[in-house]
Amino acid sequence: MTGTLHLETPLPLKEGGRLEGLDLAYETFGTLNEDRSNAILVCHPLTMDAHVADGEGEKGSGWWSFLIGPGCPIDTRHNFILCSNVLGGCKGSTGPLTTNPATGEAYRTDFPEICIEDMVDAQKHLVDHFGITRLRAVVGGSLGGMQALEWSLRYPNMVGKCIAIATGPRLSSQGLAFDVVGRRCITSDPDWKRGHYPLDGQHTVMGLALARMIGHITYISKNIMDRKFGRTLQEGRSGEGFNTAFAVESFLQYNSEKFIKRFDPNSYLYLSKAMNTFDLSGEEDDLRERIQKSEAEFLLVSFSSDWLFPPQDTTTLATKLVQCSKRVTTANIETDLGHDAFLIDAEEVQPMKELVHHFLEGP
Amino acid sequence: MTGTLHLETPLPLKEGGRLEGLDLAYETFGTLNEDRSNAILVCHPLTMDAHVADGEGEKGSGWWSFLIGPGCPIDTRHNFILCSNVLGGCKGSTGPLTTNPATGEAYRTDFPEICIEDMVDAQKHLVDHFGITRLRAVVGGSLGGMQALEWSLRYPNMVGKCIAIATGPRLSSQGLAFDVVGRRCITSDPDWKRGHYPLDGQHTVMGLALARMIGHITYISKNIMDRKFGRTLQEGRSGEGFNTAFAVESFLQYNSEKFIKRFDPNSYLYLSKAMNTFDLSGEEDDLRERIQKSEAEFLLVSFSSDWLFPPQDTTTLATKLVQCSKRVTTANIETDLGHDAFLIDAEEVQPMKELVHHFLEGP
Repeated sequence: MTGTLHLETPLPLKEGGRLEGLDLAYETFGTLNEDRSNAILVCHPLTMDAHVADGEGEKGSGWWSFLIGPGCPIDTRHNFILCSNVLGGCKGSTGPLTTNPATGEAYRTDFPEICIEDMVDAQKHLVDHFGITRLRAVVGGSLGGMQALEWSLRYPNMVGKCIAIATGPRLSSQGLAFDVVGRRCITSDPDWKRGHYPLDGQHTVMGLALARMIGHITYISKNIMDRKFGRTLQEGRSGEGFNTAFAVESFLQYNSEKFIKRFDPNSYLYLSKAMNTFDLSGEEDDLRERIQKSEAEFLLVSFSSDWLFPPQDTTTLATKLVQCSKRVTTANIETDLGHDAFLIDAEEVQPMKELVHHFLEGP
Repeated sequence: MTGTLHLETPLPLKEGGRLEGLDLAYETFGTLNEDRSNAILVCHPLTMDAHVADGEGEKGSGWWSFLIGPGCPIDTRHNFILCSNVLGGCKGSTGPLTTNPATGEAYRTDFPEICIEDMVDAQKHLVDHFGITRLRAVVGGSLGGMQALEWSLRYPNMVGKCIAIATGPRLSSQGLAFDVVGRRCITSDPDWKRGHYPLDGQHTVMGLALARMIGHITYISKNIMDRKFGRTLQEGRSGEGFNTAFAVESFLQYNSEKFIKRFDPNSYLYLSKAMNTFDLSGEEDDLRERIQKSEAEFLLVSFSSDWLFPPQDTTTLATKLVQCSKRVTTANIETDLGHDAFLIDAEEVQPMKELVHHFLEGP
């Protein structure tokens, strides 16, 4: 089921200000049971949307359709799956493309700064809307994993199980650095027009393509790049000027040109920055207290070749959770697929499916 | 001694065409002995220049002054050091900034495509100019290491010892990918003006700053970034808009803004592409024959945290050289300093100095 929740009450934001008339685009899969105890909230990564699983008659259109569906590890025959486009996104929920009620024009860069906490607060309204007082689980990968973690702390009595995949307590300095350059690629592009590019569906901001290329390199591992592309030349591709004929350039170009047609540059900026400011790595008592209060049990899954959120990040986070008396299951899956592994239905990612299934269906 | 060699004969280029009236800016340190047997050629990395060691009365101005000088591992008291700005560079040698004799205007993007072989051929003229028929050694790091390797194959009877540091037989697919994005940052910047930006010393091309930021991230290791910057906030720095207050952003910005004042964007494009096309990784008989013919003995030094040219690349190259009956010494130095380690006079890089010294002065 597809829907949009419109909030009549404003959403206060962590960094100040509030958003009026918030819309949250969502999809649901499966049926909410009578006592509303079978709900699982899925939080999507940076550039995905609410379409996490296949709709009626679809096959493979949902971005996690190999994980969520009838008979899948997250089985929609007895679970009710809820997924919304993230606050600040560009796939139906309120974000920089939304009309600012105060001006009658799109927010663009007047959109307020948002963070993971705000994304979670927006989703909380959606969960309330369905009359759900406790989620069986919150599940997410990467930016979605950060939201899942934040859910378990921010609403400590509402989350039974927290499944955070390919994520960490925070981005490393190197991760921040790549995002810094990505955002600067966008903001230094004159076609970005300080956020006021035409919204005619024709206009593209090449700075976003550059940001995506940088991102893409960090999403896959060095080994798989060598194996997939190596130094192979792309047939029919000219290496004239400052381009090369290398297949890897062809791949980056193709992928990024496709991406900029489906994603809003301002939205990318807001979401990327929100990912940067998330931080559960501190040693404050306050954070420990928040963790202690959480009723959630945790499953943390990392991938050996994920260099954006290396397995060590998962270990660090798990240690902190355990020190706060949480029940934590961690697993590191050996694969060359890199950070993006969680989005790929590959043989080597099968353990992720089994882990999620057993963790959800276990006692 | 500082000088510029002007070639009266044109330099034929590997990819076709030739360069007329080539200039090579060079510096020398120490004194060439009577039989001209004490010459060591140093090849510089991407953004350096001929000023490899300190001149009279200087201290630390040469980019490798901790390695080369009186009493240093490469001792200028009994060696004659020769270093030229690379062909295609912007520090005195012929490159895109040079006046094209055919038009009377700067070459800019009419500069022909160059490769490592061409750089070596240009240096060969300089070596000839000094009447040197055999170099005691050719030494270089990164792009300079590629030149050192190529020297030992291209002029197989002219190189006694080849010292190649923080380099490899070729860039990996991931390395290519970063360079692809870096070059596109420059060429998609309208201020680049398809290479025809004003040469007034005022004009800067921000795309070069972005390329440099990407490069810089690959030059240092994840660990050292975490240790140096972590997620520390920079005092006095605002995180408004799409910038952050993170110290790592401040560092990248400061470093890249300094860089674009000292480096020519077109030169960067040509040198970066030349680095990409270099490849000694093939399995052709031709390459084996070239290696077999070389009279050089090799020292290959890698750094454990260099992810641009990981130690494995050095091992692969060493294996190939050994299979061709070459004498090869390899060493991997444990350090968090990353690719840039070879440019840093740190305690943990001491072994590099010792290795170079013993390899040069040994039997």
